[in-house]
Amino acid sequence: MTTTVIRTADRWWVQRDEVAVPIETTAVTTGELLGDRTAIDAAVGNEIGATPVADLELLSPVTAPCRVVAQMVNYRSHATDSGINPDRVSATFFRKASGSITGPFGDIVKPAHVRLLDYEVEIGLVAATSIEVGTTITADTLGEFFAGVVITNDVSARDLQLPKTQFYESKSYPTFTPVGPRLVLLTHEEWRRFDQLRLQLWVNGERRQDGRVGADMIIDPVSALAVLTGFQRLDAGDLLLTGTPGGTALSAPPKPIEIIGALIPPHVKWAQFFKRQASNPKYLQDGDVVEVRIATDDGAIELGRQRCHVRYA
Amino acid sequence: MTTTVIRTADRWWVQRDEVAVPIETTAVTTGELLGDRTAIDAAVGNEIGATPVADLELLSPVTAPCRVVAQMVNYRSHATDSGINPDRVSATFFRKASGSITGPFGDIVKPAHVRLLDYEVEIGLVAATSIEVGTTITADTLGEFFAGVVITNDVSARDLQLPKTQFYESKSYPTFTPVGPRLVLLTHEEWRRFDQLRLQLWVNGERRQDGRVGADMIIDPVSALAVLTGFQRLDAGDLLLTGTPGGTALSAPPKPIEIIGALIPPHVKWAQFFKRQASNPKYLQDGDVVEVRIATDDGAIELGRQRCHVRYA
Repeated sequence: MTTTVIRTADRWWVQRDEVAVPIETTAVTTGELLGDRTAIDAAVGNEIGATPVADLELLSPVTAPCRVVAQMVNYRSHATDSGINPDRVSATFFRKASGSITGPFGDIVKPAHVRLLDYEVEIGLVAATSIEVGTTITADTLGEFFAGVVITNDVSARDLQLPKTQFYESKSYPTFTPVGPRLVLLTHEEWRRFDQLRLQLWVNGERRQDGRVGADMIIDPVSALAVLTGFQRLDAGDLLLTGTPGGTALSAPPKPIEIIGALIPPHVKWAQFFKRQASNPKYLQDGDVVEVRIATDDGAIELGRQRCHVRYA
Repeated sequence: MTTTVIRTADRWWVQRDEVAVPIETTAVTTGELLGDRTAIDAAVGNEIGATPVADLELLSPVTAPCRVVAQMVNYRSHATDSGINPDRVSATFFRKASGSITGPFGDIVKPAHVRLLDYEVEIGLVAATSIEVGTTITADTLGEFFAGVVITNDVSARDLQLPKTQFYESKSYPTFTPVGPRLVLLTHEEWRRFDQLRLQLWVNGERRQDGRVGADMIIDPVSALAVLTGFQRLDAGDLLLTGTPGGTALSAPPKPIEIIGALIPPHVKWAQFFKRQASNPKYLQDGDVVEVRIATDDGAIELGRQRCHVRYA
């Protein structure tokens, strides 16, 4: 059975069903907590201070500052949405500011200058330890380097992301990375079920995204990490976002328009693109409720449910 | 007169002409040193322990880990090299791993899988203090938030950078950010001379880059920071790279080829592009010597001279 860690303002907890047991630790950051596995395991085995989870105000189980690295297009269905040939995708990464991390029930705040606010449910991998540049990670050792998985929403300002080409700004505004509620620690055997995780996202109760890793992910974590650890060291508590399945508000223009678009100056092309997107009702609006769930279909690995409100600044 | 800080393995120094005076401080990181301005100023005023700079092995005056943020295309001459209309450039940022920082006389190591290794001389700005998201910085307050300037070389693997579109990996390999030798602390009046800084870079004695901020920079630091502080907090010791002038090995394909290229699949386009670039002798080769200098023409602000060797892994 998985071990599930949750966090409130003043402490860390282990969750079992609907009950939370406090972890006796001095750890403040996620990285420090993952270095105190003894304390986590002790909480799994007792009931001292047990409290209904429903009574707790849960925060992100990944604390900031930390490194937040994200994979570009990594599901076949999202590649199609984005007008990209999935057979030509290579392992590509960008950074998000960790100041964008917010809780699983917080507000997603749209800055006044952002027009096209989009959502992306993603599985987050949390590093368990320091990983030096040049480290080799295999399917057999993944569980030594990564502690487990969390729900993340890679909120994106499409009107900044696409013309600027670099994704960093458009995905780094405060509240643009809701994380949690659960950090689910995986054993070696449980990591082998990663393929069976299903990612789902609803806006105001309407299901927009519904994808399963195994059927859809292009570059698995071990292959992605072979590239990432070639240039970037990681430390305990760092977060890797592994891409989103199809169903975002963004959809690519049909092929003939794209080819004509390639012949006109970029600013004219983007002006036309945004004019079309402005009438797309799927972009997030003030007051929208975004719900996210990630789990295996049998519920053996259950990352919980995230519920955020969109708020215009 | 500017205050110049340099660093060796065991301490910080203030440099005056060709002599270095130790700074009496417990600071380890650049951020900590900038918080101990009293110690820096004390070293400026005395000669205890004065040592010839020539006897010191200088390291980067910016310590890692720190945030390294870089501006995309930001000089008119480099925009032209890259096939971009300089009048349409907006303030765009990406991250570099701070593990890429190396000393001003270290080796630039080309990983075996990288084919097209390029150079970019850039002025680095070093944050003096914490800067929260939403902070307004003006020309009058720039000196309160930023301590000074350093030479940086934004080494780039073009064969990764261009097809992957996100610049993070191609500019983040270890040794891909030589920094220093000098961290030059600027007063309010000296910041006003930023426009007069000249950036120069030589490969094996041949001058490749030679640009002046005032004549060429598209988005000045105050305007760039208005965008950056909208989404990214900074802390003392963080580093902002402000773009490179023309003269890199990379040069954009002529317009007719670019238009035809837009109609063929990206992987075919890149294959053709790299075939052409492979015969371009300006890319860095094993044993090349890369020298960099940044200063005002009158030498009143003098960031020193960087000299690195290229080495194939």
